[in-house]
Amino acid sequence: MGEPYHLDRHPLLIVISGPSGVGKDALLWRLKEHSSLFHFVVTATDRAPRPGEVHGVDYYFVTTEEFVAMIEEDELLEHAIVYGQRKGIPKQQVREAMASGKDVIMRIDVQGAATIRRLVPEAVQIFLAASSEQELEERLRNRGGDSPDQLEKRLATAREEMHQLAEFDYVVINRDGELDQAAQDVLAIIRTEHCRTKPRVVEL
Amino acid sequence: MGEPYHLDRHPLLIVISGPSGVGKDALLWRLKEHSSLFHFVVTATDRAPRPGEVHGVDYYFVTTEEFVAMIEEDELLEHAIVYGQRKGIPKQQVREAMASGKDVIMRIDVQGAATIRRLVPEAVQIFLAASSEQELEERLRNRGGDSPDQLEKRLATAREEMHQLAEFDYVVINRDGELDQAAQDVLAIIRTEHCRTKPRVVEL
Repeated sequence: MGEPYHLDRHPLLIVISGPSGVGKDALLWRLKEHSSLFHFVVTATDRAPRPGEVHGVDYYFVTTEEFVAMIEEDELLEHAIVYGQRKGIPKQQVREAMASGKDVIMRIDVQGAATIRRLVPEAVQIFLAASSEQELEERLRNRGGDSPDQLEKRLATAREEMHQLAEFDYVVINRDGELDQAAQDVLAIIRTEHCRTKPRVVEL
Repeated sequence: MGEPYHLDRHPLLIVISGPSGVGKDALLWRLKEHSSLFHFVVTATDRAPRPGEVHGVDYYFVTTEEFVAMIEEDELLEHAIVYGQRKGIPKQQVREAMASGKDVIMRIDVQGAATIRRLVPEAVQIFLAASSEQELEERLRNRGGDSPDQLEKRLATAREEMHQLAEFDYVVINRDGELDQAAQDVLAIIRTEHCRTKPRVVEL
């Protein structure tokens, strides 16, 4: 019988998406506390850093010119313009992490997740949701940095994005004060995906 | 947005199967320590109790006549003769537990799991495997109670059963001394299945 399942353990590509303000960044920080077995994709963006954000950790902050050059050199797995800001996933970074056997976790907006789904159907797609629209609105207000117009735009987009829920494999609810429960959900999903009898083999 | 996902939480039917001697019973005992959220199906059988086995806990021990009557009254979800002994799942017990909102866990041999898969395709099917044939053989020897002929028969059956692995959703490896890891795998699978955007709605 041997160990046929154990031997061919395939690294996963895990997409964590959801509306703006739902807590994707906070969830990723919590996951980073839990395990060093993952590679967390660092997204490239041409937007300005928010207070406290660190280049190479939160994002690769690049100029718009540098971003456009990466597109032209086909160095981005996916890229999109969201609220006038460019965001993209450096392709080589994902390949290298998976080649080293690590599960790769990427945080991406809902529009980007749709692109990844088309390009990499084997990716595990997780939709992070607030427990209600009110909760999401409060979080966006508390985060600050948005004008009333921007806030309204984000909420309208969030409402639209909820309709794409069924396109994802899993939905994880990020309830107020229960971030660790959401993190435990994601860890359970990753553990479970490694138990599948038909593994999702990612080819980039 | 409301809580559309949270509100329609569907109870799961979880099938735990695998070769004779792989540790299904030990795994179930471990799971019982972890959670009171589950209902563990008590199988009916006409075989004699092994030392320490309790009626109504390990099995419903019935006479062959009583067992046949249950079949005739269509009271069994599934039944089979394994090694000359009858085993069956009382249907009403499963319905009642799910109606109360509990996830139902049933331990069943590989032959029975195939029947459940046909009758209840929405069931979550977990195959419990030893990490090697040698390990399985040792466990069967240590368990005792089998003649050399019976032992050889069980091992031959186990080899055949491994070919049905791909018919299951998940494979969990029960390594020597790592029963808790196997239990954690199963708990992760259950947690994950409740996060599916397309829940498996069981109808019996």
